[in-house]
Amino acid sequence: MIGDIIATGEEIITGALVDSNSAWLAERLFNMGVRIRRINAVGDDIDALSRLFEDVSHQADVALVTGGLGPTVDDLSAAAVAKTAGTGLKLDEGALKSVLAFFEKRNRPMPETNRKQAVLPIGAEPLDNPIGTAPGFKIVVGQCTFYFMPGVPPEMKRMFREQVRPRILQGMGSGARVSRQRVLCLFGLPESATDQKIRSFPELFPDIRLGLRAKFPEIQVKLYAAGADPSALDERLDAASRWVAQLLGDVVFSCRGESMETVIGQLLRSRSATLALAESCTGGLIASRITDVAGSSDYFLFSAVTYGNAAKVGVLGVSDETIARHGAVSEETAAEMAAGARRVAGATYGLSVSGIAGPSGGSAEKPVGTVCIGLATPEGVSTCRAILQFQSRAMNKQMFAMKALDVLRRELSGLGRF
Amino acid sequence: MIGDIIATGEEIITGALVDSNSAWLAERLFNMGVRIRRINAVGDDIDALSRLFEDVSHQADVALVTGGLGPTVDDLSAAAVAKTAGTGLKLDEGALKSVLAFFEKRNRPMPETNRKQAVLPIGAEPLDNPIGTAPGFKIVVGQCTFYFMPGVPPEMKRMFREQVRPRILQGMGSGARVSRQRVLCLFGLPESATDQKIRSFPELFPDIRLGLRAKFPEIQVKLYAAGADPSALDERLDAASRWVAQLLGDVVFSCRGESMETVIGQLLRSRSATLALAESCTGGLIASRITDVAGSSDYFLFSAVTYGNAAKVGVLGVSDETIARHGAVSEETAAEMAAGARRVAGATYGLSVSGIAGPSGGSAEKPVGTVCIGLATPEGVSTCRAILQFQSRAMNKQMFAMKALDVLRRELSGLGRF
Repeated sequence: MIGDIIATGEEIITGALVDSNSAWLAERLFNMGVRIRRINAVGDDIDALSRLFEDVSHQADVALVTGGLGPTVDDLSAAAVAKTAGTGLKLDEGALKSVLAFFEKRNRPMPETNRKQAVLPIGAEPLDNPIGTAPGFKIVVGQCTFYFMPGVPPEMKRMFREQVRPRILQGMGSGARVSRQRVLCLFGLPESATDQKIRSFPELFPDIRLGLRAKFPEIQVKLYAAGADPSALDERLDAASRWVAQLLGDVVFSCRGESMETVIGQLLRSRSATLALAESCTGGLIASRITDVAGSSDYFLFSAVTYGNAAKVGVLGVSDETIARHGAVSEETAAEMAAGARRVAGATYGLSVSGIAGPSGGSAEKPVGTVCIGLATPEGVSTCRAILQFQSRAMNKQMFAMKALDVLRRELSGLGRF
Repeated sequence: MIGDIIATGEEIITGALVDSNSAWLAERLFNMGVRIRRINAVGDDIDALSRLFEDVSHQADVALVTGGLGPTVDDLSAAAVAKTAGTGLKLDEGALKSVLAFFEKRNRPMPETNRKQAVLPIGAEPLDNPIGTAPGFKIVVGQCTFYFMPGVPPEMKRMFREQVRPRILQGMGSGARVSRQRVLCLFGLPESATDQKIRSFPELFPDIRLGLRAKFPEIQVKLYAAGADPSALDERLDAASRWVAQLLGDVVFSCRGESMETVIGQLLRSRSATLALAESCTGGLIASRITDVAGSSDYFLFSAVTYGNAAKVGVLGVSDETIARHGAVSEETAAEMAAGARRVAGATYGLSVSGIAGPSGGSAEKPVGTVCIGLATPEGVSTCRAILQFQSRAMNKQMFAMKALDVLRRELSGLGRF
């Protein structure tokens, strides 16, 4: 089966938005055994859209289209594919019900403009969108089955999983293979060094496809396999995961694709331990990541985002003298911040970060990228200092946050702390 | 002038890599006044590549191609375009010199495999790559001028700026059009209602293209125009911006595409005011956004991420009785949190949020999505309560954070506060 992916929208064609939907869909189609011919993007222009649909209808068996299903005048997907198919548009009662249900559930009247979203090409089958106003639809043009989905990523992803994927698999018939994947997440080893370490993978596991992906600031190792027997696939992938994890060592923080904050939540929960933070340069980012995990209130108590020195002294009890002598960005200050956060919150662990995220504020002794991390445990306080310098303030913040979380993970896992 | 952008590589077509090069190039072409027809991606397959080049050569005046210039067997760009053009390949002495120079500069011998990178289609003009081994090249096929660049982003960007852009501008001659855009950012009005309010835009400004984009939790209104006279364009776009801003009213927080945290930073700075936060359900997200702005230490002092009630009482001085009587998620608690943050940090403003981000923790009286916001100013404390319920915990956190920031923006702008 040959597939095409089409992203629509002026914001994509003018570079205002990086199209990440297409890569997400490409990965899934690929894993289903669909050979992808092209990824295409085109603007909100009815002629350009319908010409592209025309081209694709002659070349692909299946086409996934994102965007252009909204209520506004530049949402043209339905009109464009109707033009390609040489058919008209009409109000689809099923689709209208779905739009109405969305507003009813929220106790809001449906604005008249949203009625347009239920106007589909004649012959199209509507696809339910339980979390947004835009129903999708399926329509066959020439030899190609087109699936139209919203451009909003969570709506698109859910519609793909629940409505589109099963239909494509059905179309592929009984010869359909299942595919499985494993994702190992690691932090602290560059991509090229990771690649080097597991270089002999293809010889040992020729049946498994290996992919490396830099998802700043972590690296993900992805293993894919496809075949007829799911349990044989799982067994084989588990063996491959173990091999990779053993070679890469304790930089691997998850073999199941979990985020660092999820792993830390599990470790804290399993020890009935609690956490308090003291953040300076990360500005609340660590707390925000920790609290992205549902149920984090079970172990997360408090973060003091002490951006100014007065708050470091007043809230955390860092001594004026320590700051004056060593500076706010120092292991000495980080130690007092960690101990202070632990004491103030009555937590098992106190984790602190103080650093220089840039672009200004650096010096010869403490350049931009300098970060000091403190960890207070029931046994005492330890600290480390590193220079982690990346292209932007935002990247430095992310790297500092990840490094601090990794220090805590190593402590909780009984590994070397720093 | 009509342009196409082409990304090549198996890693793009299988979704292992998100193609950000194309968005970068699209934005630059757009700003040069080139109308972009399509963005295309295709794998490392000589037939697929040469068919795509063929299609594009009939449709576009200029095509920018990234990737496929490396030394390995899957680097096929030169061979594929030679096939399209019906010409042969030959070693280009100028290109070879450039590859040799790269290795000489680094005191390394050139591996024999890299010689392939100097083999270009007959009739191509090499483009220097001072920071990588792969020279680019320019070749005319049919009516279209193709520019081939490396896929490595820094090499591609430098080659585009220094070699490709000047050649395209020269090709456009004196008839070159410039293009300009404006971005208005708003919060608190749904996309469909926004569209409704400015529905008569195309009649009043037929020369300006309007685009609406939901960038959760904000909405952006984008205005694009192209023409020969930059100052006439600016004047026209300013008039259109003013018209849109006036119709949409005070939900518009920026007419220059700035983020909410940037706008708030400017407002605080202009009043020499400082800010402290008390965050519960947003878990540090507001502080992290505020500190994404370089220089925020000038006005941002402190955020108390008081996830547990003990921290609300101990750090912010919220009374046990208030929490016991009204609950942690209540306007009463939010008021004491805001006042506490302001007092503890000695800030001009204290802003607080307490709510239920979900997925659990809701009740009939206080469902998931309930949020209470407090604002302490030199004049006193005020509060509000809302139910803002979206698809996920992460989206609820984002919405709560934005709502709180908007409350502060309205106060600082002298608008109605809630």
